[in-house]
Amino acid sequence: MLVCRSRKHLHLLWKKKKCLEMAKSPETEHPVKAVGWASRDTSGVMSPFNFSRRATGERDVQFKVLYCGVCHSDLHMIKNEWGFTHYPIVPGHEIVGIVTEVGSKVEKVKVGDKVGVGCLVGSCRQCDQCSNDLENYCSKQILTYSMPYLDGTITYGGYSDLMVADEHFIIQWPENLPMDKGAPLLCAGITTYSPLRYFGLDKPGLNVGVVGLGGLGHVAVKFAKAFGTRVTVISTSLSKKKEALENLGADDFLVSRDDEQMNTAAGTLDGIIDTVSATHPLLPLLALLKPHGRLIAVGAPEKPLELPVFPLLSGRKSISGSGIGGLKETQEMVDFAAKHNILPDVEIIPIDYVNTAMERLLKSDVKYRFVIDVAGSLKSN
Amino acid sequence: MLVCRSRKHLHLLWKKKKCLEMAKSPETEHPVKAVGWASRDTSGVMSPFNFSRRATGERDVQFKVLYCGVCHSDLHMIKNEWGFTHYPIVPGHEIVGIVTEVGSKVEKVKVGDKVGVGCLVGSCRQCDQCSNDLENYCSKQILTYSMPYLDGTITYGGYSDLMVADEHFIIQWPENLPMDKGAPLLCAGITTYSPLRYFGLDKPGLNVGVVGLGGLGHVAVKFAKAFGTRVTVISTSLSKKKEALENLGADDFLVSRDDEQMNTAAGTLDGIIDTVSATHPLLPLLALLKPHGRLIAVGAPEKPLELPVFPLLSGRKSISGSGIGGLKETQEMVDFAAKHNILPDVEIIPIDYVNTAMERLLKSDVKYRFVIDVAGSLKSN
Repeated sequence: MLVCRSRKHLHLLWKKKKCLEMAKSPETEHPVKAVGWASRDTSGVMSPFNFSRRATGERDVQFKVLYCGVCHSDLHMIKNEWGFTHYPIVPGHEIVGIVTEVGSKVEKVKVGDKVGVGCLVGSCRQCDQCSNDLENYCSKQILTYSMPYLDGTITYGGYSDLMVADEHFIIQWPENLPMDKGAPLLCAGITTYSPLRYFGLDKPGLNVGVVGLGGLGHVAVKFAKAFGTRVTVISTSLSKKKEALENLGADDFLVSRDDEQMNTAAGTLDGIIDTVSATHPLLPLLALLKPHGRLIAVGAPEKPLELPVFPLLSGRKSISGSGIGGLKETQEMVDFAAKHNILPDVEIIPIDYVNTAMERLLKSDVKYRFVIDVAGSLKSN
Repeated sequence: MLVCRSRKHLHLLWKKKKCLEMAKSPETEHPVKAVGWASRDTSGVMSPFNFSRRATGERDVQFKVLYCGVCHSDLHMIKNEWGFTHYPIVPGHEIVGIVTEVGSKVEKVKVGDKVGVGCLVGSCRQCDQCSNDLENYCSKQILTYSMPYLDGTITYGGYSDLMVADEHFIIQWPENLPMDKGAPLLCAGITTYSPLRYFGLDKPGLNVGVVGLGGLGHVAVKFAKAFGTRVTVISTSLSKKKEALENLGADDFLVSRDDEQMNTAAGTLDGIIDTVSATHPLLPLLALLKPHGRLIAVGAPEKPLELPVFPLLSGRKSISGSGIGGLKETQEMVDFAAKHNILPDVEIIPIDYVNTAMERLLKSDVKYRFVIDVAGSLKSN
């Protein structure tokens, strides 16, 4: 209905036809049968769901989903915590698979190729942002799930057997990059890679802080190390020190609640990637920055944070945000990951474990990303 | 005492001598007699005050104070609202005058020259910040008033008949720049000029917002216009519209409490200079920015502001702070002001009006800066 209302300018008959089409069920609105796991309400509980995918258009790529990462956004969205979920919702935006069909005008990939789809399946393709390969900042971007697509139907994500997307939003998967472990790069990877690059924290010798050691944070450490920076992990919990230094290769570790440690490290960091989405104090983090340093938030706390302004003034410091990345940069990122052997640490799960996985994710009980073995566990009808 | 304690590393006898010297009164600690207006306690009430200035050192410039601007910081400091005031305090850091004596190694100016001193009279001269002409971000910077100087005595500002400062911290005053109206450039001017330059908001054609139309804001409008940008003033009060558009030359005016106006202007500004030091909402201001836009705070609210993180992420937006400017840039700024005929709007007052001026400043009842006619109104002993 939302979409029908927004298309008032179109011809009445066309509109009527469209609304009639939309009145069709998810299972019948398109010609290609698909199955996935969906949540039907704010409980967020997921179960098998029959729906359909559109026929492969001339610029479309259809692919069989092999793996799909479980992102914290999925958890927010299945419970409608951000307020714009369309139910039923099939989540998943870290999707990799094998091409099964391509449209007549597709040039990027062919049947049998490894491909990926991240957070976006559409954008206006015309605005300043799109023209500069920044589809992720296009105001008409279309998210991979739970959003109206160009044809008015709702998008469904990668917790499903089959995907179809315009080739512009298809990532060519590097041959030597594992598809299971690599899947989370399509969201967690680009979300941390993009700000490190854009804000110039990709220079050897710089001191980069990473706050929070979860799905985003652990990948941020790996990219920052690959860029040749000296990486300090900042965490509330000393228990993560060994993991940060020995397994992830960080150079230093700070317990954010230890005033002495934090004071000693004051003014030492060129930049900080802050991955924490819980409410947390910014003041101790700003104190870690050198003058002209920058904290970049990539997590999205629901409530506003407290911003002390004086520390910004006295050191010309900045707080910025960054959200995923454009398609060109996402391709660059997976190619970089393949070249430098950067892979998220994952726990592979069958799809019928996904409700338990969500409960564990809520408790941060995963190192560091669940990846669903979709093809190996999703039962077709 | 603070300084004596910090000099433990020096020889005991020297230290003893030094402490004895510091025990001298402000009137006798130095050889050159001076008179100013000082506040003695947190009432902030000022009255005449006899003190002394150091003998002109080989790199020092002594000058007769002609005019001194009244900055909002002066108001905070005389009442110890920032917690580091040394009483008695002689405020004033927008100081212009005529050189009366120079040390043997001074090269920058000669007796009779017009000069200025802004917020700083010292810094370490060695650190990364100082080496890059950013003395304003040196952690050992010495403020022009109410701070321990290198010799351990407390600095006194420009509400006084005589100043002395190391030539490095002396600004050469352009011949054609009026000294009375120009004085506030030394703080209000550089505080707005520096971020416009550093953050690239000095390019013709850019859309720049200025929040708040006070001492800082009205100068920000003038500099932004001189850089060729299109300037939008954002204010809580419609009453300032005529002033902003007709007298200051702004191009647009938005009432921040008018949702319709603010919504219409959403996503139109490349950057915003936020001069407001009262608590205020950031969300409507962030909405005005284009993707990748930046809000720069130059006012210092006492309490933390509420920072909504999601708008930063979704548009890769930034919030930065900026504090005054380095000496090289301050010189560049007054030269630019002289060339482009940029002058603050001021109300010239005699020094015995200063307590009333502070009361009016607290109510924002001044367009836009008080300037004390020091030489014309301060009675010598």
